[in-house]
Amino acid sequence: MPQGKPETVPDDGLTTRQRRNRPLVIVHTGEMKGKSTAAFGLALRGWNQGWPIGVFQFVKSAKWRVGEESAFRALGKVHDETGEGGPVEWHKMGEGWSWTRKKSTESDHAAAALEGWQEIARRLSDERHGLYVLDEFTYPLHWGWVDVEEVVATLRDRPGHQHVIITGRYAPQALVDAADLVMQTTKVAHPMDSGQKGQKGIEW
Amino acid sequence: MPQGKPETVPDDGLTTRQRRNRPLVIVHTGEMKGKSTAAFGLALRGWNQGWPIGVFQFVKSAKWRVGEESAFRALGKVHDETGEGGPVEWHKMGEGWSWTRKKSTESDHAAAALEGWQEIARRLSDERHGLYVLDEFTYPLHWGWVDVEEVVATLRDRPGHQHVIITGRYAPQALVDAADLVMQTTKVAHPMDSGQKGQKGIEW
Repeated sequence: MPQGKPETVPDDGLTTRQRRNRPLVIVHTGEMKGKSTAAFGLALRGWNQGWPIGVFQFVKSAKWRVGEESAFRALGKVHDETGEGGPVEWHKMGEGWSWTRKKSTESDHAAAALEGWQEIARRLSDERHGLYVLDEFTYPLHWGWVDVEEVVATLRDRPGHQHVIITGRYAPQALVDAADLVMQTTKVAHPMDSGQKGQKGIEW
Repeated sequence: MPQGKPETVPDDGLTTRQRRNRPLVIVHTGEMKGKSTAAFGLALRGWNQGWPIGVFQFVKSAKWRVGEESAFRALGKVHDETGEGGPVEWHKMGEGWSWTRKKSTESDHAAAALEGWQEIARRLSDERHGLYVLDEFTYPLHWGWVDVEEVVATLRDRPGHQHVIITGRYAPQALVDAADLVMQTTKVAHPMDSGQKGQKGIEW
């Protein structure tokens, strides 16, 4: 936990400061809840640094992050009104991406996911955000809707100082290999196991 | 992820609604980062439900949660000014608990930790918060500064509908056994391994 010394110093020609401030690709994967939750917790720190935050939800239902969305929209408003923290954009595939307002139908999820990724690639090229949360983006990759190799190359070649967090199960190996940090959540015990269903404030 | 049916329904005499709304004790433990981050992500949902949030940091250095603290203080202010979300209190042992303003010294960490727990027990009895984050509280338990059995009994007997999230390594077995949900974070890859030190916005 402390800001300790790394165990080894790589021979990569970078100064400590350069290495320290390297923009990161972070993957939160595993079978258990907590992947997205931890990503949004991390985004709080980015917000506090004044970074423009961009959240892109690759999920059908918009229900499951409603708490985080409300909180981040409130933080974005704090920024807009007082200058504290960073600006926040929150985009959802489930309702049709806000930049197109085209409602996705059951049949065109693959197209909508690809369109979402293409917009993110444009924003990476434009250095639009300081921190990207690509929530549940592993699924379109897993299902082959978006090409993993293209994503890995785009992330590798992105300019400037942009952090990217990708969440979801089944993270493809090529993405895991390309990540600077991979967090895996493991289930130990869960109330669902003893017959409890989800509840507000905890599950969404 | 969907709000699915539980696999088994326990014979505990509770209705589905009662079981569903059962207040939870959640433990985030394991060797990897992400424990506190996920707890604060979860607290965003509680804030959105309008629950009074109480954060208690059992750590010496106040540096490592500065992003989360700023964001939650901003959210607390949003609540106070607009009524959106819930009120937020954030207390730190490192600077002396705010309700005593007694600066802790090197020698009395154990006393300060115990005092923190006693205040939390009083608040649980008063039903002061809807969601408690006891950040790094496993350490005072692990070191024997606060009695695990007493904590478990107090949590078990707490009145009303109060969720409690406890984070940190070395969660004592009695606490794990008493928890409704245990999330374990596992390290897969981390930039520290390749000689990178922590950086702002990511590590704090």
